[in-house]
Amino acid sequence: MLTHLALCSIPNPKKVLLVGGGDGGILREISRHSSVEHIDICEIDKMVIDAYKKFFPDIAVGYEDPRVHVHIRDGIAFTNSVPEGTYDVIIVDAFQPMGPIAEVLADNCFLESVAKALRPGGVLSAPADSLWHKNFVVADTIANCKKIFKGSVNYAWTTVPTYASGVIGFMLCSTEGPPVNFKHPINKLNPEKNGVAKGPPKFYNPEIHAAAFCLPSFVDKVVDPIRY
Amino acid sequence: MLTHLALCSIPNPKKVLLVGGGDGGILREISRHSSVEHIDICEIDKMVIDAYKKFFPDIAVGYEDPRVHVHIRDGIAFTNSVPEGTYDVIIVDAFQPMGPIAEVLADNCFLESVAKALRPGGVLSAPADSLWHKNFVVADTIANCKKIFKGSVNYAWTTVPTYASGVIGFMLCSTEGPPVNFKHPINKLNPEKNGVAKGPPKFYNPEIHAAAFCLPSFVDKVVDPIRY
Repeated sequence: MLTHLALCSIPNPKKVLLVGGGDGGILREISRHSSVEHIDICEIDKMVIDAYKKFFPDIAVGYEDPRVHVHIRDGIAFTNSVPEGTYDVIIVDAFQPMGPIAEVLADNCFLESVAKALRPGGVLSAPADSLWHKNFVVADTIANCKKIFKGSVNYAWTTVPTYASGVIGFMLCSTEGPPVNFKHPINKLNPEKNGVAKGPPKFYNPEIHAAAFCLPSFVDKVVDPIRY
Repeated sequence: MLTHLALCSIPNPKKVLLVGGGDGGILREISRHSSVEHIDICEIDKMVIDAYKKFFPDIAVGYEDPRVHVHIRDGIAFTNSVPEGTYDVIIVDAFQPMGPIAEVLADNCFLESVAKALRPGGVLSAPADSLWHKNFVVADTIANCKKIFKGSVNYAWTTVPTYASGVIGFMLCSTEGPPVNFKHPINKLNPEKNGVAKGPPKFYNPEIHAAAFCLPSFVDKVVDPIRY
């Protein structure tokens, strides 16, 4: 979901940066997108990559895509080092060890360097806290993202039974430029083209993409207060 | 959700039967529907009702609706005893103690008496197992419901963090008669009319109703195999 919510929302994504995600699963998902020409992954811990290649080959299969370029570096330093406007999509899958997901999205310096590294109308996809999190802390994350991303800022969610409360959230943000309507994906995955993956996605489809942006009323009031 | 997925899907529901649900929360939700003229609740255990009235008044408030008629009886016997075609909607919120949700929906005698108690084009709403349940046993439930309900048989889901896997499923079935399109609710709740409830629903809205029927691909393949 983290991958396709971004890559299916813009026409012909070509350059993608993945920060974290060393297991390779997100690379495998990016690999389904035939418009993509170049994939940078910046993972700080080489051992994660080695462990997944050894013990979880169905996930680490993402590294077999020849478009993938691996950088073993700190994600913040890497993002700061690239020329402005380099990427169509940046996917962040980096967490403070055992900390709340929102912490990465509360780091304005990092978010600003992500926004700079994106082309106008480029998009960020990042995990966010569950809508069931006490006091719905995502409200702060959304407010923070709106300061930095002048295009569109959206909260989405789906079911992941292994996460606390059974829900994971996502932040989908775009920079100023061509408008992005995340709720209505314009790129459909081609079930015949799966890159290095061994078949079509088991979970993602355009309906579940659109449904991810449908929020319970108590969440919608926080995310989109103008409607209330 | 269990209530509104049914009541928002047909025009002007008038007679509703609730089997189980002695806590009163579903009665409170039915109470928001001003077209409803008569609500029967059949709860086998009076102590559930008394306990909720004493300790959880915000849930048991449903009993304050004057349209509610309480029957302390076995739900199967009660459903068998009513004339054919009595109800527009039957909501089942009865479980085997600690058993899987699907067991009630595997009881064909009960399902047949539910179908008989509904008018043509009337609808059943019942909880069903999570889509994350091992081997997705809901496939059997769906097959079983399709034998008995000759209108529309649908599986829906939403997030409930206190259920195993964080997900609860729903079966929405209609009898032969005027077709029911559960996925596009034709009745919208009026936020000004809340019956005995103290404000509009915190969770339900038309978007989250439609989203409940959007299924991950591995579930959709089982529920709607003709598409694959």
